[in-house]
Amino acid sequence: MPTIDFWFSIGSTYTYLTVMRICDVAHQADVEIRYRPFNVRTIMIEQDNIPFANKPVKTAYMWRDIERRAAGYGLPIRTPAPYPLQNLELANRIAILGLGEGWGDAYIHETYRFWFQEGHPAGDRANLDLALAAAGQPAGQVIGRAGSAEVGAELVAQTRQAKSIGVFGSPTFVVDGEVFWGDDRLDDAVAWAKNGRLAAPA
Amino acid sequence: MPTIDFWFSIGSTYTYLTVMRICDVAHQADVEIRYRPFNVRTIMIEQDNIPFANKPVKTAYMWRDIERRAAGYGLPIRTPAPYPLQNLELANRIAILGLGEGWGDAYIHETYRFWFQEGHPAGDRANLDLALAAAGQPAGQVIGRAGSAEVGAELVAQTRQAKSIGVFGSPTFVVDGEVFWGDDRLDDAVAWAKNGRLAAPA
Repeated sequence: MPTIDFWFSIGSTYTYLTVMRICDVAHQADVEIRYRPFNVRTIMIEQDNIPFANKPVKTAYMWRDIERRAAGYGLPIRTPAPYPLQNLELANRIAILGLGEGWGDAYIHETYRFWFQEGHPAGDRANLDLALAAAGQPAGQVIGRAGSAEVGAELVAQTRQAKSIGVFGSPTFVVDGEVFWGDDRLDDAVAWAKNGRLAAPA
Repeated sequence: MPTIDFWFSIGSTYTYLTVMRICDVAHQADVEIRYRPFNVRTIMIEQDNIPFANKPVKTAYMWRDIERRAAGYGLPIRTPAPYPLQNLELANRIAILGLGEGWGDAYIHETYRFWFQEGHPAGDRANLDLALAAAGQPAGQVIGRAGSAEVGAELVAQTRQAKSIGVFGSPTFVVDGEVFWGDDRLDDAVAWAKNGRLAAPA
């Protein structure tokens, strides 16, 4: 089955639109999705790529764009969601841990849902209690294990790999070495995975 | 007929994808397009919004993304096209002049075609000779008239209006006060013009 690497950081705003619909998209298109958490903040700082801080016009646009697109996808949303995250690293460490143990998808979906629909920032304790409970996991114990050196090293390694293949933002879809950046490129990535080119216009 | 304001600067790379297809899109969707040239560089510098300079990874991605999307639209392209433009202001002054006289659409289309398909930077004399000839205009005379204080003031006024309604990049589509930024939002703008909301997913 064609496979798409879905590189993302919990902390990215547009990634909400992807996380909430990627299962359905993959199912309908008959492609496999590999969840690849990394730390986008590390790469963006390194590359001096700071899209929203101190850019009020662009930031206001971003929220309106996400709100309209969420409505187009039939997704509930409360904008602006709390942003930026204080605990981006912990949120993504838990994703790494969960994906290794089989409950990562559920956690990622729920943590975004509680962040963008209920206003609890991902990575904060209130969000983690709710999202991990929904994923069937004991929050206190998971948070403790996510603090380990091994999980931290894995997030660093994933971030290094993302950077090495040209990933610079979240969400990014990678198919056969082709990099597609942005929730609005998910259709392009699916087309590439299936046909090795973008769909011709209708 | 529903109307979309198409704010753009000749100088923007992604605007190539829009200029080459917007007539067809408008015709098929039965919407009217108003061409609104402005000076995006002025606004981007003011807002410290510099997406590509000194960002080699993002720049390389931008060219690959445009190349893939051009192929998806069936548009020829030579990447990377010369960028950034030396003569962005002149290129857009001529657009202002031409739109007032009825040959603006043809010039805009042709100047992008010679820039992205033949490698002649928009605003440079070689491009202007070719693009204005294709639009049925005498290049020397047009360039002279485009240098007038009136045309310069009109470009400044258009740029000020763009900024006042929240335009910060090119291309941007504005419908009933809703701002849609990027060639990849043209479908959203068309949906909004026709239905006042984005299309629900298929």
